[in-house]
Amino acid sequence: MKHSFILLITAFSLFVTACNEEQSGSRTVQAVESSKTYNWKMVTTWPPGFPVLQEGVERFADNIKIMSNGRLTIKVYAGGELIPALQTFDAVSQGMVEMGHGSAYYWAGKVPEAQFFSSVPFGMTARGMNAWLYDGGGLELWREVYKPFHVMPFPMGNSGVQMGGWFNKEINSLDDIKGLKMRIPGLGGKVFAKAGGNPILLAGSEVYTALERNTIDATEWLGPFHDQRLGLHRAAKHYYYPGWHEPGTVLELTVNQRAWDSLPKDLQAIVSNAAMAENLRMFSEMEQKNMAALQQLKDRPNIQIQHFPDDVLAKLKTLTDQTLAEEAANNPKFKRVYEAYQAFRLQNDAWSDISENAYLAIE
Amino acid sequence: MKHSFILLITAFSLFVTACNEEQSGSRTVQAVESSKTYNWKMVTTWPPGFPVLQEGVERFADNIKIMSNGRLTIKVYAGGELIPALQTFDAVSQGMVEMGHGSAYYWAGKVPEAQFFSSVPFGMTARGMNAWLYDGGGLELWREVYKPFHVMPFPMGNSGVQMGGWFNKEINSLDDIKGLKMRIPGLGGKVFAKAGGNPILLAGSEVYTALERNTIDATEWLGPFHDQRLGLHRAAKHYYYPGWHEPGTVLELTVNQRAWDSLPKDLQAIVSNAAMAENLRMFSEMEQKNMAALQQLKDRPNIQIQHFPDDVLAKLKTLTDQTLAEEAANNPKFKRVYEAYQAFRLQNDAWSDISENAYLAIE
Repeated sequence: MKHSFILLITAFSLFVTACNEEQSGSRTVQAVESSKTYNWKMVTTWPPGFPVLQEGVERFADNIKIMSNGRLTIKVYAGGELIPALQTFDAVSQGMVEMGHGSAYYWAGKVPEAQFFSSVPFGMTARGMNAWLYDGGGLELWREVYKPFHVMPFPMGNSGVQMGGWFNKEINSLDDIKGLKMRIPGLGGKVFAKAGGNPILLAGSEVYTALERNTIDATEWLGPFHDQRLGLHRAAKHYYYPGWHEPGTVLELTVNQRAWDSLPKDLQAIVSNAAMAENLRMFSEMEQKNMAALQQLKDRPNIQIQHFPDDVLAKLKTLTDQTLAEEAANNPKFKRVYEAYQAFRLQNDAWSDISENAYLAIE
Repeated sequence: MKHSFILLITAFSLFVTACNEEQSGSRTVQAVESSKTYNWKMVTTWPPGFPVLQEGVERFADNIKIMSNGRLTIKVYAGGELIPALQTFDAVSQGMVEMGHGSAYYWAGKVPEAQFFSSVPFGMTARGMNAWLYDGGGLELWREVYKPFHVMPFPMGNSGVQMGGWFNKEINSLDDIKGLKMRIPGLGGKVFAKAGGNPILLAGSEVYTALERNTIDATEWLGPFHDQRLGLHRAAKHYYYPGWHEPGTVLELTVNQRAWDSLPKDLQAIVSNAAMAENLRMFSEMEQKNMAALQQLKDRPNIQIQHFPDDVLAKLKTLTDQTLAEEAANNPKFKRVYEAYQAFRLQNDAWSDISENAYLAIE
């Protein structure tokens, strides 16, 4: 089975090589190539029908079908429909499917340095991340990091600054975090543990019940729109901001390298433009939906929308720097991406200070 | 001449109608349509080779050529190469060219309410503008506003928060603005006049010499990257932020309505995705280049990068509210867009306060 598959690949490669060689001389070959259709599968880490994200992926697939006049069709499967959500990266890597959508920190166990391409605590927001990825060398570095896995990444979507989460008690000082059981994954969770908290791993589907039954004391999720949709305002009273742990999570399109290489140039350009367009579109839709949901939450009588105390944020920031430095000391690959990220981030912060930052601070 | 043109258009429309009617039944017609090529012209408001903006427009045209496999080619002309820069809108409106690129406030004389689709003083930044345009009804409104001119707009690029400008003296209070001759166009200029300043209209090409020779006392331009490139740091010493007058100017792609309608659905989708992708890309590139240029400017010994005094900004903001209210009182069309903009902006501000704003304010 495997043997005949390799033969098929070899035969196909020879055919492609032959096509490429003939291309300049022959209109017929070009016509054959441009009428060839590709029927791809795409898996995501999102629940079926998940607003903004799963919907955005479906819009992306529809757009590609229209732009390519049906030459590239992508059948989209939500998490669990074809494979479990968190196997998305492996499925794309192994060529089981051609495309995936999720976020790079989901593969932190396998590729710890990938986290810098989604979001790190106290890191850059969407604006800085896009500038780094598209124009500051970030995307090239990301592609290098994924290359051993035969995966080609594209930024596609951003959560914006998330909320800090729902708490069943007030957080007035770092003491209030001690022993607190909070659903907070990834690097945010590590920092939270360093602060004395007790980070709990829970799938999204379990979050509401756990908080409502006091199995956990707190949870972060996304922003006002998705949080309200999950009903978290019925399970806890104190809604904290800002989301220091995820200030602008980049979502990713992943494409299997061999599948990518098999596409003619026009379809490659269609995919890459559609991904960039959707990168902006998902972010904009997320912002708009969060604005509207925030207004609704403010009208609810039983919740309090509160700012984390400044000294709590300052302490969490120090612990974040420690956490990142420790990870870097233990892992040269992590260190390399961390340093590239930090170098860009310093420039980004200096510019933000006198642009977006200074502007938004006008009373 | 005009009569035969109309006959031609009518004949063409009949042909298109016939094609559409036959389409479902006939593969041949579809093949003819999908092999038809479109050779379009596009004019811009930017100088030849203008970094980020003119370059971005050229990248957009290249992308479309690749994605469409050469079926839609767009020849791009910089400002003045085919027509004067500020006739871009009219040229697209009259169908002299199929596409244009610029910014909506350039047509304020003809369509005052168009200014809300580029930038207004103390208005929304790029993030809020995109959320409004794509998901808050802004783009639909913009299309309504341009409809009588047979022009179809798309957001395509953003300047980010601009700098406040270069001044040959310190601005310590509103008194320092009295009588000050500053190159500052549009609504920003009107507000500046209300504050006692003397707004001067100057083309970009004249700005440096006028400032260097003290014909003007101050000028705004864009951000660190373009400002430094124009040499403004050699003509004045005080570089002020933030750019209250243009906090995130949206750039626009304009397409002649009839040309747009003539495109098959796949090419329409290609144009619209390419524009959305370029919207993000130009903004990201602008940010990255501004960061790098700011670092260079900081290393120059003779300039001071300074924050406008808070009370000056507060006063300018009050005068902006007055200016917009006056324009709205005199012009129902302006009023309609102003109210839609303001309604969205209130939601946007409330959300920013607890997300981007609160996050960026962490010390």
